[in-house]
Amino acid sequence: MNRVETSAATRPQPMNGEPLARACVVGASGFAGALAAALLWSHPRVSLQAVTARTEAGKRLDSLYPRHRVPLVMEQFDPDRLAGTADVALVSYPHGAAAEVVAELRGRGMRIVDLSADFRLADPALHERWYGPHGAPALAGEAVFGLTELHRDDVATANLVANPGCYSTAAILALAPLARAGLIADVVVDAKSGVSGAGREANARTHFVSVDENVSAYAVDGHRHAPEVDQELAALGCDVRMTFVPHLLPLDQGLLASCYVTPSRDLDAAEVTSLFEEFYAGEPFIELASEPPGVRDVRDTNLCRIHATALPDGRVLAFAAIDNLWKGAAGQAVQNLNVMLDTDETDGLR
Amino acid sequence: MNRVETSAATRPQPMNGEPLARACVVGASGFAGALAAALLWSHPRVSLQAVTARTEAGKRLDSLYPRHRVPLVMEQFDPDRLAGTADVALVSYPHGAAAEVVAELRGRGMRIVDLSADFRLADPALHERWYGPHGAPALAGEAVFGLTELHRDDVATANLVANPGCYSTAAILALAPLARAGLIADVVVDAKSGVSGAGREANARTHFVSVDENVSAYAVDGHRHAPEVDQELAALGCDVRMTFVPHLLPLDQGLLASCYVTPSRDLDAAEVTSLFEEFYAGEPFIELASEPPGVRDVRDTNLCRIHATALPDGRVLAFAAIDNLWKGAAGQAVQNLNVMLDTDETDGLR
Amino acid sequence: MNRVETSAATRPQPMNGEPLARACVVGASGFAGALAAALLWSHPRVSLQAVTARTEAGKRLDSLYPRHRVPLVMEQFDPDRLAGTADVALVSYPHGAAAEVVAELRGRGMRIVDLSADFRLADPALHERWYGPHGAPALAGEAVFGLTELHRDDVATANLVANPGCYSTAAILALAPLARAGLIADVVVDAKSGVSGAGREANARTHFVSVDENVSAYAVDGHRHAPEVDQELAALGCDVRMTFVPHLLPLDQGLLASCYVTPSRDLDAAEVTSLFEEFYAGEPFIELASEPPGVRDVRDTNLCRIHATALPDGRVLAFAAIDNLWKGAAGQAVQNLNVMLDTDETDGLR
Amino acid sequence: MNRVETSAATRPQPMNGEPLARACVVGASGFAGALAAALLWSHPRVSLQAVTARTEAGKRLDSLYPRHRVPLVMEQFDPDRLAGTADVALVSYPHGAAAEVVAELRGRGMRIVDLSADFRLADPALHERWYGPHGAPALAGEAVFGLTELHRDDVATANLVANPGCYSTAAILALAPLARAGLIADVVVDAKSGVSGAGREANARTHFVSVDENVSAYAVDGHRHAPEVDQELAALGCDVRMTFVPHLLPLDQGLLASCYVTPSRDLDAAEVTSLFEEFYAGEPFIELASEPPGVRDVRDTNLCRIHATALPDGRVLAFAAIDNLWKGAAGQAVQNLNVMLDTDETDGLR
Repeated sequence: MNRVETSAATRPQPMNGEPLARACVVGASGFAGALAAALLWSHPRVSLQAVTARTEAGKRLDSLYPRHRVPLVMEQFDPDRLAGTADVALVSYPHGAAAEVVAELRGRGMRIVDLSADFRLADPALHERWYGPHGAPALAGEAVFGLTELHRDDVATANLVANPGCYSTAAILALAPLARAGLIADVVVDAKSGVSGAGREANARTHFVSVDENVSAYAVDGHRHAPEVDQELAALGCDVRMTFVPHLLPLDQGLLASCYVTPSRDLDAAEVTSLFEEFYAGEPFIELASEPPGVRDVRDTNLCRIHATALPDGRVLAFAAIDNLWKGAAGQAVQNLNVMLDTDETDGLR
Repeated sequence: MNRVETSAATRPQPMNGEPLARACVVGASGFAGALAAALLWSHPRVSLQAVTARTEAGKRLDSLYPRHRVPLVMEQFDPDRLAGTADVALVSYPHGAAAEVVAELRGRGMRIVDLSADFRLADPALHERWYGPHGAPALAGEAVFGLTELHRDDVATANLVANPGCYSTAAILALAPLARAGLIADVVVDAKSGVSGAGREANARTHFVSVDENVSAYAVDGHRHAPEVDQELAALGCDVRMTFVPHLLPLDQGLLASCYVTPSRDLDAAEVTSLFEEFYAGEPFIELASEPPGVRDVRDTNLCRIHATALPDGRVLAFAAIDNLWKGAAGQAVQNLNVMLDTDETDGLR
Repeated sequence: MNRVETSAATRPQPMNGEPLARACVVGASGFAGALAAALLWSHPRVSLQAVTARTEAGKRLDSLYPRHRVPLVMEQFDPDRLAGTADVALVSYPHGAAAEVVAELRGRGMRIVDLSADFRLADPALHERWYGPHGAPALAGEAVFGLTELHRDDVATANLVANPGCYSTAAILALAPLARAGLIADVVVDAKSGVSGAGREANARTHFVSVDENVSAYAVDGHRHAPEVDQELAALGCDVRMTFVPHLLPLDQGLLASCYVTPSRDLDAAEVTSLFEEFYAGEPFIELASEPPGVRDVRDTNLCRIHATALPDGRVLAFAAIDNLWKGAAGQAVQNLNVMLDTDETDGLR
Repeated sequence: MNRVETSAATRPQPMNGEPLARACVVGASGFAGALAAALLWSHPRVSLQAVTARTEAGKRLDSLYPRHRVPLVMEQFDPDRLAGTADVALVSYPHGAAAEVVAELRGRGMRIVDLSADFRLADPALHERWYGPHGAPALAGEAVFGLTELHRDDVATANLVANPGCYSTAAILALAPLARAGLIADVVVDAKSGVSGAGREANARTHFVSVDENVSAYAVDGHRHAPEVDQELAALGCDVRMTFVPHLLPLDQGLLASCYVTPSRDLDAAEVTSLFEEFYAGEPFIELASEPPGVRDVRDTNLCRIHATALPDGRVLAFAAIDNLWKGAAGQAVQNLNVMLDTDETDGLR
């Protein structure tokens, strides 16, 4: 029996020998931060030492998120204390607020995966346009964009990984094989997300009664994840106009990117299939499916399930489904951490 | 008090004088047919005389659909009996099965709104490609495509109206102003529907556990509503490739068509707004909104709520939200019937 | 076409001659207040003159609630202005805040249906125990508890009607026939409500992610609606311990009260049926069903659908389903207003 | 990358040395059977050798349930083949159909956990009353009722374990401490289940549109799980009338039993707490919470989360939340199998 209030903080599975790293999660009271803490709490090679929260400090994390069952007390952010107890940090602060704490922790030598947008855009001007002045411009240059499948080698040696946005993750993974092959002449991404992607803040948009039995587009004139996708497509050699429109759906976790590509030359379905199979050969978290994926297929996993095909009318379609809190946030953060620690990329994520 | 089992069949509102027509609903046990019966049951100018059903005959409609509160017993289909008691029929049979009963009733002089696809495609070859041999080819020529806002005059004098598909209704209404103005060079329609659009049949796809916490594309290689949209866009002078992909969402009633148009020339948002305002001036069931519509905004109404705009990157977006059972099926059928009977188009639909 | 932003404030249906009363809704920005405004806006005998809101004044009601389509601008509360334009008021303020505005409006001669709890409990000591000091003790004595089916005659002549709570409405209607017959020895009410019952306030409890795929009991040690039920059962001559436990469900509108009665003497199912049929004979908003009701059966209606029976083991069961926003709040408020105005009780509620 | 269709059948985690047992799942195409297969597929001490299905044989299990990712092909039931490849079987057939296959496999020496109701009721007359003639009466006597927390010692040595029903599991766990202490004078169980409890069969009851935005009681005059609860309460010395009423909720996985106990003597909340803490001391899958549990707290876990308290009015309340497919079916089956194999009870269930 677990007396919930008083249960000792015993880990769900014993370490296999010494941990590879001692970790902390900064900002564990949000959805992504809490999941990051849960994943690290049961990670076989990493020892979660501390969790912090800005407004909920002093409470146990499992009182806020019973289902995650992490019995640690959330602390106030104290960089000295964290640097003394942990080697690596997953930072899950709101955009704008993260830069400063990342700078504090980097200044104390910690390696960091930052789940915010603060270090995702390599172009400072672009960052400023979307997010305003940068909170730690000196650090921006050293950050690696943590779409693991595209930047694994850089992530491995990085001290600061900028974990991609949830929409960006799905859209980039759906389009990357086509982008690198120079096959995208034009592309529309119609993206559909569950409500956890909107974060833990209670407001009119996340109220049950607003979402239930509803679906609508939002941020039609520009969503902040779009420039991330543009940046990565450009890095793959694809410099085209992308129209990206997100929609909010009445579900909890899950994100589907439906991508409509006008290809630069004729393609048939078999060629598209081959392209994706080659691009993603050996990837542990990519699933290629012969039917359009459902987000339910990947719920509570770090998988990205993709179906790509070409229509007789010439359009190329690519659908990518992820769990926005896993592969779209905390799961990919742990995947990146695994790469940084040179352990099996799937540790703690199976 | 209403003893549900024995309540007399008293109409929810008294007729305003003599009814303009006596009506029947053929195929009232499906979602659309049952709603059609409910709408006619409380219609101020039409008297619902009979409802039929193939597999549920002998049961009261309100035992199957308590919420519709239509206390009539569903009968076996008997064209002589129907022609004796009613002047007009709303036919809500599955595709393929409708043609024959429509022919029977037309042969007895009844005016008909057919909710199936059997008379929607004017090109016989196209019909055969999508649906197989036609069950009543002689009648196909007299049918009017009942997208009321586009074909009101023809509907007024028609004896057979082919009520459009739910996806078609939303997509056509979202695109018609642009199509008629010759402004569509290319278009992608990403459509999202609630489960009632899949009909009353219980199968793996409509099982709660399949739909809940899920979203996925389907019919990627061609949905039967696409040729209806093509036909209507062509009739408006727009002969372009349209890519149409439907998605199933975890909600009951509601359909959103998100349309991504590559315009044939530069357009700004103000011009798009004007175009739509002029096109739909005076339409009682079209709402133009300054924000993307949610399907919740139109639930249980016959309204189509549209937001159209142009992005700085040149793409033109049009979003149309309807209730798939109302404007997408039974509501539009009653709207068409009102036009045929030369009464207020909104009678029974407010 | 309705240009949503600028549509003229034309009523959905024309008045039948002169209105019986000019009405206002005070506190129209909450779920119940907004529905009350919508119901009055399309009411055939009442003319809605004004709506007010505390925090949203200056906005149009249909910008907050597109689906209700009430194109009035919400005003600041101004009792003189309201008394000048309206004869009756539906007040939908939070508990505690209502008493004061009710006093202001009563002082100006208006007749009022108050949707808050401020005037529901006749015993001042009981009121104070559950809600603290009363804001208008002088008025408390004149209020009539507006469970229409039980107090229709008093409502007819009342100047201040205290509209019951949603849970109370369902529980009282489920138990009243048994209570008046002196048949309840002991009773458990397990109540289940959709999220709209928790109000429009966005908080951790109403966040989509908290409610979705969840169900739990709350207020186990005492919900404020319980003393309302006790009061009404006592008024029917039934003075027993009632255990009442509410649960929150992942749905929008709907409330089910499952009542488990230990009867004071043996009863069989037929006797229970007769009891309910006699008690509710002629009631326009009570439906007696031969199967347990679903809340979907009464969604968006003012109906209370009840199934009552006796089990072989002796227990008597009564299930009552309502729409918590309709019969549980705004619908019953309009029903009471109709009674006060001596018009058909179902006006504006069909 | 996993090419879904052709992925090799590699287990998600390597065995720790030799498996303790080779297992098969008979009837893996239903919800519970499929989850049982998934749990065994990733079990660290058991090797899943085969899965069977009656109607879906020949298909891969992961084509039916992508999210479970078990890449085995479902076979026709062949007891000789199964006995040749496996030592233990989890049987997940419908009630009535299980007895025969259990007999076939027991006759070949296999140890079995049967998830059906066929061996749950020890009293043959009672079984016949609820289920009709028994399909394997000779075996009925050797079955152990697999509510692990109550019958662990018997399960350990059993060759045939009758896994309890989902409702029974929650109700018994909520009531057992009170029952053994002789404290229950009368009890009402109001139970609420997600739709997966109704099984994979697509019918009017499991159609999304029937369940969505709905809640209703069913099987009011007697649910088959009630006699299981009675049997176990009696075995604990508690022979009282229990009223049990199940309700269907619009969610996927999750079951809440709300239990209302009239105690045989006065109890206060502290005494209730102590009673439960003592009863469940050391139990790995029981959580005692200081607040009413939500089913979301236990989703996708084998935990039963319980809150029990006493009200000032004397009533004792106990709420138990489980995942109906885990602790209510497949999870508890694996828990029982672990006990039978004398390995850690939580193996494969963390």
